[in-house]
Amino acid sequence: MTQLTDDALNVLFREARTHNGWQNKPVAEEMLVALWDLVKMAPTSANCLPARIVFVTSDEGRERLKPHLMEGNVAKTMAAPVTAIIGFDMEFYNHLPDLFPHADAKSWFVGNDQLIYDTAFRNSTLQGGYLIMAARALGLNCGPMSGFNPEGVTKEFFPGTSVKVNFLCNIGYGNDENLFPRSPRPDFEKFCSIV
Amino acid sequence: MTQLTDDALNVLFREARTHNGWQNKPVAEEMLVALWDLVKMAPTSANCLPARIVFVTSDEGRERLKPHLMEGNVAKTMAAPVTAIIGFDMEFYNHLPDLFPHADAKSWFVGNDQLIYDTAFRNSTLQGGYLIMAARALGLNCGPMSGFNPEGVTKEFFPGTSVKVNFLCNIGYGNDENLFPRSPRPDFEKFCSIV
Repeated sequence: MTQLTDDALNVLFREARTHNGWQNKPVAEEMLVALWDLVKMAPTSANCLPARIVFVTSDEGRERLKPHLMEGNVAKTMAAPVTAIIGFDMEFYNHLPDLFPHADAKSWFVGNDQLIYDTAFRNSTLQGGYLIMAARALGLNCGPMSGFNPEGVTKEFFPGTSVKVNFLCNIGYGNDENLFPRSPRPDFEKFCSIV
Repeated sequence: MTQLTDDALNVLFREARTHNGWQNKPVAEEMLVALWDLVKMAPTSANCLPARIVFVTSDEGRERLKPHLMEGNVAKTMAAPVTAIIGFDMEFYNHLPDLFPHADAKSWFVGNDQLIYDTAFRNSTLQGGYLIMAARALGLNCGPMSGFNPEGVTKEFFPGTSVKVNFLCNIGYGNDENLFPRSPRPDFEKFCSIV
């Protein structure tokens, strides 16, 4: 097999929706491990893997998250079986001697704060995108969000570390409750060109 | 169908590699349109779709890109059938009245430069991640890169606009030439936790 079926493309892209309502059906811890085992395989720059992910699955965890959410994101997040807090480690380069043994990649970053930030933010976001795709591939649904107080979430979930939050993603088995009408998607010519 | 087969997971994640060598086989324009038609369906914040993509497919285009590439990225990029230049539009919010008709989302951004930048960078990167997954899903291979001069590429390919380059991605039918040995991928516990 070298390319996916139409059914698979529908699951990943065409028919998948951002979910706001959730079936009362838990997501097993084994599923979260399976999710990571897919996400970790997808490419990051020099295999830097800067994402640090906290999966909130308990009521205690949700209560810690709640005060930092924008009003419109509270109810759906409290009802979601899992909320992934996707962070990025500003000291990711300390792992490069293990993660990228081909070269002295750590030396590319030490002392270059702008490059560290750009690399951590860009590559943790890529990993967040892979997480959405991997979750859908495993039969789960997602509800990604950037409407929250980042300082508050960082302080609550990554205290005393070099990790900062990037974005959140509710995960579970979705239902059609509060599903938005599908927003417009423009044709190729609108935002793409060929030279 | 609600979840993907093991074969499909292998194509997307487990067996896919970052390619540095390319078969002498072109990628049809119809394929690039098919690629966008998948990428555009995946979620961005308020459907903001800030990515602007230039697909370099001509020798003329490659010559314009060449002087801005890091030495190690020149040969493989000159040999790739396609290089996607993934940019982000710092004025993406002007399209929100069309793209997100549910709310006055434009007003959330106007005058808030940090939010504009964070949203444009984060969401165009997500779209870049979706592009990698969509290309693999269509039977193509990818070679994403951040080793280039961003000011130079922005000036050459997005002159006089509000678009800045994010990262590049070679696309084509890969071969095993110069394939890196697979770098280590850590277990769940290393970078993830459950609360």
